[in-house]
Amino acid sequence: MTNKKDINAGIIIIGNEILSGRTQDTNTGTLATWLNLLGIKVEEVRVIPDKQNIIIDTVNNYRKKFNYVFTSGGIGPTHDDITSESISKAFNMKYGAHKEAFEILEKYYKPGEFNEGRQKMAWMPTEANLILNPTSGAPGFNVENVFCLPGVPSILKAMLGGIQNKIVGGDPILSLTINLRTVESEIAKSLSEVQNKNADVEIGSYPFFRGGKLGVSLVLRGTDQNKIDVCNSEILKFVKEKEIQIVEDN
Amino acid sequence: MTNKKDINAGIIIIGNEILSGRTQDTNTGTLATWLNLLGIKVEEVRVIPDKQNIIIDTVNNYRKKFNYVFTSGGIGPTHDDITSESISKAFNMKYGAHKEAFEILEKYYKPGEFNEGRQKMAWMPTEANLILNPTSGAPGFNVENVFCLPGVPSILKAMLGGIQNKIVGGDPILSLTINLRTVESEIAKSLSEVQNKNADVEIGSYPFFRGGKLGVSLVLRGTDQNKIDVCNSEILKFVKEKEIQIVEDN
Repeated sequence: MTNKKDINAGIIIIGNEILSGRTQDTNTGTLATWLNLLGIKVEEVRVIPDKQNIIIDTVNNYRKKFNYVFTSGGIGPTHDDITSESISKAFNMKYGAHKEAFEILEKYYKPGEFNEGRQKMAWMPTEANLILNPTSGAPGFNVENVFCLPGVPSILKAMLGGIQNKIVGGDPILSLTINLRTVESEIAKSLSEVQNKNADVEIGSYPFFRGGKLGVSLVLRGTDQNKIDVCNSEILKFVKEKEIQIVEDN
Repeated sequence: MTNKKDINAGIIIIGNEILSGRTQDTNTGTLATWLNLLGIKVEEVRVIPDKQNIIIDTVNNYRKKFNYVFTSGGIGPTHDDITSESISKAFNMKYGAHKEAFEILEKYYKPGEFNEGRQKMAWMPTEANLILNPTSGAPGFNVENVFCLPGVPSILKAMLGGIQNKIVGGDPILSLTINLRTVESEIAKSLSEVQNKNADVEIGSYPFFRGGKLGVSLVLRGTDQNKIDVCNSEILKFVKEKEIQIVEDN
């Protein structure tokens, strides 16, 4: 049994359009932000092409390695939408028209409009659990710890609410950001010392440049507020000593 | 020897800030678009955390699997910048102050300002080739087929010009986009038939919603203009038959 604290996830973004640079992926950010709020840490993201063997291998690797797996893309009606069939194969499940999905789509479209292309969107592992789609009919689906969502960002976002109750989160991941008017190399040594003393808090250092001025955002992340507070005061101590200005917003 | 046509690459995005959703990655898009122009196909992208063993394993896996590997992130001066040391270990090379990098940085900073934090940016595999940084001094580096670039998008972009001559590209990847005022399910079957007859052209279908109207972008990609043209006319044929409107811009 995994410790509640350590619940993690992997994200698989499926689509040639991301790999060619044509489309900017934003689903990683949406999923990662949402999972963080549930106390689930994203350990890895892979962007892979629309190739069946690669989808199968990646899903089978991820579902053993992570508590939860989320896929995005490839569940639409066209020839390049091969995620549903690939997932069926990964789980050795029957790929066919899902009864409930078929009924939902049949009701969604006007009589005579539920054509072959649209029917394809009901094809998935026949024993999968559906993930309802409040915006455009065609559902996603879930098999064991794998959740298959569409690639269109607005539809993916709208579907997350419906799966929240299927996911057991971990301890909330708390975070605190300190924005400093400095450059990384000025604080690197002191920051390193604070990190060494506070192994349970993950300290990230991110330079920024805005409004013509350089700065550094320090992000403290962990599950224990007290430990974050200790870390915070140690940072504020060297910030004061070095006479570095704290800025409200980066 | 790889066929010129088949030159490929993998991209490794290193950084907890992407996995937590705090930062939206744009380096994948920048690198993918640039590589496409060089005729190099990006086969996979991985986003991984700032953990040494994961960086080493991923780099060692990718450098055997792909012609070129690009990493982004983790080469700055702070404790969470561990890419350079990890790459040294992946290649079993000495990690230390790189002579040329040290000299560049020493000249870049004013006397007395080249502190310990800044000196860390000269630490890398001592035998690496430098990738010069026209915007902010600290260079990236290259070992064999692996190119290590910074995470800050504007700096990464500025450094690409300097490595173009170190990369042997493939046949240019040509692409043609057809924007249609339709929905995917209306054309799925016909499109599938065209794809089956034209295996050398990759046809992607991407729904869009803009200005209150739905549409589908079809993207034809390949290295042979004639084959793309054939594919294009077969698509235009069924588009005409179905009386679907072509739109100039999606």
